[in-house]
Amino acid sequence: MIKAEAFVTRLKRLSKRSDHQKLWTAAGGYAAVYPVDERTAMALTTDGVGTKLLLALELKNLSTIGIDLVAMCANDLICVGARPVAFLDYYAVGKLIDEDADQIMEGIVAGCDQAGLLLVGGETAEMPDLYKDRHFDMAGFAVGLVTREKLITGEKIGKGQQVVGIASAGIHSNGLSLASKLVGSDKAMKEELLKPTLIYTKPVNEILDKKPQAIAGLAHITGGGWRNLLRLSKTAGYRLTEPLEVTDIFRHLGRNIEIEEMYKTFNMGMGLAVITDGEADFIIKTFKEYGFTAKVIGEVTDSRGEIIIDGVGAQGGAITLNEKE
Amino acid sequence: MIKAEAFVTRLKRLSKRSDHQKLWTAAGGYAAVYPVDERTAMALTTDGVGTKLLLALELKNLSTIGIDLVAMCANDLICVGARPVAFLDYYAVGKLIDEDADQIMEGIVAGCDQAGLLLVGGETAEMPDLYKDRHFDMAGFAVGLVTREKLITGEKIGKGQQVVGIASAGIHSNGLSLASKLVGSDKAMKEELLKPTLIYTKPVNEILDKKPQAIAGLAHITGGGWRNLLRLSKTAGYRLTEPLEVTDIFRHLGRNIEIEEMYKTFNMGMGLAVITDGEADFIIKTFKEYGFTAKVIGEVTDSRGEIIIDGVGAQGGAITLNEKE
Repeated sequence: MIKAEAFVTRLKRLSKRSDHQKLWTAAGGYAAVYPVDERTAMALTTDGVGTKLLLALELKNLSTIGIDLVAMCANDLICVGARPVAFLDYYAVGKLIDEDADQIMEGIVAGCDQAGLLLVGGETAEMPDLYKDRHFDMAGFAVGLVTREKLITGEKIGKGQQVVGIASAGIHSNGLSLASKLVGSDKAMKEELLKPTLIYTKPVNEILDKKPQAIAGLAHITGGGWRNLLRLSKTAGYRLTEPLEVTDIFRHLGRNIEIEEMYKTFNMGMGLAVITDGEADFIIKTFKEYGFTAKVIGEVTDSRGEIIIDGVGAQGGAITLNEKE
Repeated sequence: MIKAEAFVTRLKRLSKRSDHQKLWTAAGGYAAVYPVDERTAMALTTDGVGTKLLLALELKNLSTIGIDLVAMCANDLICVGARPVAFLDYYAVGKLIDEDADQIMEGIVAGCDQAGLLLVGGETAEMPDLYKDRHFDMAGFAVGLVTREKLITGEKIGKGQQVVGIASAGIHSNGLSLASKLVGSDKAMKEELLKPTLIYTKPVNEILDKKPQAIAGLAHITGGGWRNLLRLSKTAGYRLTEPLEVTDIFRHLGRNIEIEEMYKTFNMGMGLAVITDGEADFIIKTFKEYGFTAKVIGEVTDSRGEIIIDGVGAQGGAITLNEKE
């Protein structure tokens, strides 16, 4: 992973040649925001599901991996304030088997319905010399629309604001390689790992429509775990005194791994964090109406680049996460 | 391939559930056209390079496969009249090797420069359990912008209009599996097959800027060969009396295969076809200014779904291609 990050840094240098200043700056870099005109921009993102698809193959259940694919993209779009509108998929496979392909596409369609996305295109490639047997890979591409007024830049994040945590449905689509190793051959736990990623777009759309000022920042908790919060602002830190309850799967995964590592790798029960200046009740109410579990878990501090999480360390103490680790 | 097409048909049925009528209808389905407002829409497409990447690995030259990736997407966008603006890539690999990754990304950046695209994002995944050693796959996502006036719907295509053929640089990125088999172990021919796909966006942008009415239809010649022309209009046929000269690679490939099969699989020296109502000179001049070879190769007929190509069959006779073959 560190290697992949170094490569991404080199890539950024390489692509600096091009004219990037026309992009609007958005919090966390969750999506590129390309202006259509003065007022409106397209938010663009791409993602895959990583090794979760190998787990799906192992468990012979491909019905929800398409939901994960859509979720990874759609949840990124909302973090810049965009309303997700359109989705395309790339699906490459060793041998195209109707049953497998149907399950995958049904998942993608279900995910698009959940996210309010229209599936507008895709590419299917059969490459027996690249993928063995039923092996496959997939990439998703999602587009959203955002206005200047709704764009989340992270600039409004400030000390004393509340952090609302929205519950996840398990580990979602990050940290699967490590998690698969940790659960070993435990079939029930593997099934837990395969649970599809929750899609948070509809309540966020509603909040942004009704009260665009209610959200100062949004962090989709992906690779890097809770450190995703530190992507949103260059000045903020966080003190999280009442984290969401950690479910069994995380307790199981944590038996042989440091708690700091857990929070740096997994979502630890929180799939999305919302930063708000005084609108926590409205935000929690809206998420609950859509069936999500949500509560205030702490607040923004001015300890730049530092997250303190109370009550989860040894003997119920605090742990600290830093950006550069 | 037929199997993949059947799957795509099923997928279309599946995704009909969603609300697709808001999309603007564009010729050939080369890109989905999603409206931003009354006047402007986003054109969205995704593609891969298929087994051309295996050839690149075999020849230990990954420096241009990124150009192919961008080309496959960018050339699709222009076929609906869109100006390509932004590109994202998905790159998944067994083992991330700096040298390989740098070559690939340099190709993508070079392709984006050629296409006038801004590389705005991407995803890099290292998955040793899915891809062996240096094996990799890649998907491209490109976005263009198009106005109502510039949208190419195919409705203006009519009998007697001219077809301008724009030369390719070889087989580009389609038909590689068959071509690789046909060339066997001939290293020089393999190098020919690896030549990067030409990117036709800049002259097309210029033509659409100066005389939007000059283009009635555009066919990017991809999988399905010259039958791509039949995607543009439900009523048109084509009589092509003076096809572009076929280069050595196609003669070499054609030694053991029917000529009809060749035109149904490969681009046969023509990477793009432009349909015009009387503006052939302007179109040819513009393409030549950008260094492309271009000439009138024939005209539109009213023989719905039928392409006649003169002088390429047995004893210099004509061949006929039909849609449903």
